[in-house]
Amino acid sequence: MYRSHTNGELRIENINQEVTLCGWVQKSREMGAMTFVDLRDRYGITQLVCGEEHIKIAKELGREDVIQVTGKVIERESKNKNIPTGEIEIAVTTITVLNKSKTPPFTIEDNTDGGEELRMQYRYLDLRRKPLQEALKLRHKLSIEIRKYLDSINFFEIETPYLIKSTPEGARDFVVPSRMNPNQFYALPQSPQTFKQLLMVSGYDRYYQIVRCFRDEDLRADRQPEFTQVDCEMAFVDQEDILNTFEGMVDYLFKKVKNLELAEFPRMSYADAMENYGSDKPDIRFGMTFNYINEVAQNKGFAIFDDAESVIAIVAEDCSTYTRKELDKLVDYVKRPQIGAKGLIYVKCNEDGTFKSSVDKFYSEEDLKTWADKCGAKAGDLILVLSGDKATTQNQMNALRLHLGNELGLRNPNIYAPLWVYDFPLLEWDEESGRYHAMHHPFTSPKKEDIGLLDTDPGKVRANAYDLVLNGTEIGGGSIRIHDRTVQSKMFDLLGFSKEEAQAQFGFLMNAFEYGAPPHGGIALGFDRLCALFGGQETIRDFIAFPKNNNGRDVMIDSPSLIAQEQLDELNISINPIS
Amino acid sequence: MYRSHTNGELRIENINQEVTLCGWVQKSREMGAMTFVDLRDRYGITQLVCGEEHIKIAKELGREDVIQVTGKVIERESKNKNIPTGEIEIAVTTITVLNKSKTPPFTIEDNTDGGEELRMQYRYLDLRRKPLQEALKLRHKLSIEIRKYLDSINFFEIETPYLIKSTPEGARDFVVPSRMNPNQFYALPQSPQTFKQLLMVSGYDRYYQIVRCFRDEDLRADRQPEFTQVDCEMAFVDQEDILNTFEGMVDYLFKKVKNLELAEFPRMSYADAMENYGSDKPDIRFGMTFNYINEVAQNKGFAIFDDAESVIAIVAEDCSTYTRKELDKLVDYVKRPQIGAKGLIYVKCNEDGTFKSSVDKFYSEEDLKTWADKCGAKAGDLILVLSGDKATTQNQMNALRLHLGNELGLRNPNIYAPLWVYDFPLLEWDEESGRYHAMHHPFTSPKKEDIGLLDTDPGKVRANAYDLVLNGTEIGGGSIRIHDRTVQSKMFDLLGFSKEEAQAQFGFLMNAFEYGAPPHGGIALGFDRLCALFGGQETIRDFIAFPKNNNGRDVMIDSPSLIAQEQLDELNISINPIS
Repeated sequence: MYRSHTNGELRIENINQEVTLCGWVQKSREMGAMTFVDLRDRYGITQLVCGEEHIKIAKELGREDVIQVTGKVIERESKNKNIPTGEIEIAVTTITVLNKSKTPPFTIEDNTDGGEELRMQYRYLDLRRKPLQEALKLRHKLSIEIRKYLDSINFFEIETPYLIKSTPEGARDFVVPSRMNPNQFYALPQSPQTFKQLLMVSGYDRYYQIVRCFRDEDLRADRQPEFTQVDCEMAFVDQEDILNTFEGMVDYLFKKVKNLELAEFPRMSYADAMENYGSDKPDIRFGMTFNYINEVAQNKGFAIFDDAESVIAIVAEDCSTYTRKELDKLVDYVKRPQIGAKGLIYVKCNEDGTFKSSVDKFYSEEDLKTWADKCGAKAGDLILVLSGDKATTQNQMNALRLHLGNELGLRNPNIYAPLWVYDFPLLEWDEESGRYHAMHHPFTSPKKEDIGLLDTDPGKVRANAYDLVLNGTEIGGGSIRIHDRTVQSKMFDLLGFSKEEAQAQFGFLMNAFEYGAPPHGGIALGFDRLCALFGGQETIRDFIAFPKNNNGRDVMIDSPSLIAQEQLDELNISINPIS
Repeated sequence: MYRSHTNGELRIENINQEVTLCGWVQKSREMGAMTFVDLRDRYGITQLVCGEEHIKIAKELGREDVIQVTGKVIERESKNKNIPTGEIEIAVTTITVLNKSKTPPFTIEDNTDGGEELRMQYRYLDLRRKPLQEALKLRHKLSIEIRKYLDSINFFEIETPYLIKSTPEGARDFVVPSRMNPNQFYALPQSPQTFKQLLMVSGYDRYYQIVRCFRDEDLRADRQPEFTQVDCEMAFVDQEDILNTFEGMVDYLFKKVKNLELAEFPRMSYADAMENYGSDKPDIRFGMTFNYINEVAQNKGFAIFDDAESVIAIVAEDCSTYTRKELDKLVDYVKRPQIGAKGLIYVKCNEDGTFKSSVDKFYSEEDLKTWADKCGAKAGDLILVLSGDKATTQNQMNALRLHLGNELGLRNPNIYAPLWVYDFPLLEWDEESGRYHAMHHPFTSPKKEDIGLLDTDPGKVRANAYDLVLNGTEIGGGSIRIHDRTVQSKMFDLLGFSKEEAQAQFGFLMNAFEYGAPPHGGIALGFDRLCALFGGQETIRDFIAFPKNNNGRDVMIDSPSLIAQEQLDELNISINPIS
């Protein structure tokens, strides 16, 4: 036993006890013959007092040295109310340096002086900082509670294989050459989708797994090549059952982990979400929904609006006092190439009842008043208008709305607004490949009432698919699956699979459907993202112990890396010259 | 909601309730106008009674059809005491076939008629059988309880990466070509060893993870290329702390899962285990320990013994009545090429006090009596003797001892005999490569008192390493780690790493040791094996939902498989012609 207590544990009640503590030197300071040392571990900080007899060793203590001390718990003269151990300190009798530390490349403090790249390289030191320790603790707590909840309602966690088969529908697979089966490859799973469906065919009924998934995509900001999913599936259920079960889980997590009671989650169809927010994952912590003002804005001689499929307005409350400079910044924002609007029209609804717009040349105050009425804008508000083809304009207006939400402080990370979005389209047309792609995945079932459209107008078919959205971020998605071989074959047809391709890649699943597959469906939640949201953070990186950078590299261990020729030979593969 | 109850739920108290059930047709039989159907799901079986009005649909029901029925719970006339629902049945009012099933290729019964290969191909059907459902349920239960225990004593589960770096010490790595970093490869972890050590350097103190590990080995029976480990690490501990913590865990699991109280686990040094059992994982459910009888057996003119380094005897109690045929079978057993003994000597200690041996030509009854005394054999016992060089003979005698244990019914799978084996050698000499290999792994610390031997006689150095053995199977192993850069460098030297190789492969860890690494150590338990032992089984395959066969293939999904040339091109690799 190296220690009797942790550094977060001792209180005034422990006074006069002999204790042994271990930890890292957070800092030390001399005051005359005495040295005060803050000793840190993941449980907290305890102050040590070293007297004259330890002066030599105490003088040499540096930040991050690992030490062991014995001593007596005494009451502090000047108490520190900010930490739980602040009423006591340890009068040190012996002190042993267990391991010296070089000076760390950045300070181990809540706000460090280390840059991103340096901290990634010394991740093991960055992980000593309290914000990261809190993040990983939260992650542990969430995983424990998720399992408790699902276990309590008869879900089994069942592990599915990581060495599976490449099925290049969707994102790119990572592949693994097989030495024992030369020229053949395993693939790492993008998700355990087909396996969890097979488990339903096997009668397991309620499955979950907190599981790693892999996608070899070009990494956008805040994506990782490996990520963790809370993967779930249920049999003999319809959509309503799944929504209720997992709303229950998220409710439970908020209660257990954040001590928050959430109201019933609102539900919104995909069509409504697009119409009112221009997004399939609206942030409903604030309003500013879309108004389609074609009727009142067109045919007044303003060609840009007249030629537009959609003229969309949002209302920024109490913003009529925006200055020219502030308005110009909004115009610049929507003109950024990522958003790509050509311009932005504004209407100030002045406090005095007058109106002032950037299109006064075309519209009278009377006209602008009809806009305000149509949008429900009141005196003091600012109306912002974009126009063009409907889908593009919705998309641009979504970006502007979220930007304004941020600017106006309407997106408080401590407020949680979950939302179910449902009735997603089954298919989306891909211009590049000239064929339909599955919007969710090829196993999603069409809505019964839309099945007739599969032959006549596939793009219109809605799916039994749903997303769980939290504060404008998709944290989960799922669907009721196809459980009928004929429908599944038809789906593969629509997605451009030949009979042979479908059989080669998914034959095992279609065969399984012939042996008594029950109706089933499920959901998968992004666990990294869920942790970040619970931690009130935007980015997932600090909620993953050892993340990779945007080039998919682990800069700490320097991976990926070259491997030995002997390994390549054994695997019967060669590397090509880099072109 | 497809159902109001499961098929394991209804009891006599539910009589007269209207219920809706779903499940698979286990069997159906007609009795006049009535059809009786056994409806199955993972919760149990409920009997349905279909009247004349359902005759058409009931007649067509086949095994494994998925149906939904509504009806009233009624009391059975002839009750079935063997199942919990045996007192009731359902008088069916409506019946709906949700999905027809083809006739399955084998029967879904506890004892199926399907062969191994067929059941692997249709794993999703095999998984419907009760023994497999029980196995996966047990696995779920064990994982839940492991997490509960470790969570309760402040362990955090922390996920470590699956895409790491190839470090070809130990077994072969599976590798993953990186598209974004051409010609470079990730490796899949053989264990999260270095990451968990880094987490100790990061101050996490108590880490665990139920984690997949990968080894590209030629598969012996009952090995899998991917397997699951309960991986644990602690800081500021010595060996005693780790043994106590995980003895506590195994105790807890037996209590919670099997309602068994285990006694304190015995502890045995590696040297004693080899000396007395010829194995580093002795099955201590039975005695039959080794007796070294050189002193009494040599120098009597029997050249085979006279020339042997060791003459080892074991005593099979009450087996003096073995027939010639039975003895011959034992001789054949030890002569099998896997064991490789040249012969086996026996001595019958007859009930009447006489002795009869296969070497009567060389030894008098007086001589044989000294053997019996030396071995503690009593009248009625059988002494079996092997000889040769010590290590080989120990190994052969271990095989014979376990064989006899099986034959004599001394290895009852419902008796649990855990054991700690400690003080393993640090290194073992590998003839083939002409160098030392790490017996556990290169991060294991030598025992303080043996450090001097590192320079003079490395093969004699003992390690702070320990195994947890259950019923003759190693279920876990671990060690106190090196936490000092200098010692770690020396270890890599001994293992034949050049400075450059050590730095390239493990530089990050040795660097980390310079920034305040605490003393630490850990253990990893084989989770598949643990589940099998708790389930009273020898093989792990049925405790893994989707295992691979001995060629590393998943015959159900037919993986590994060829991938598209396009994929190879993107990865910048080529496959070599198969030679």
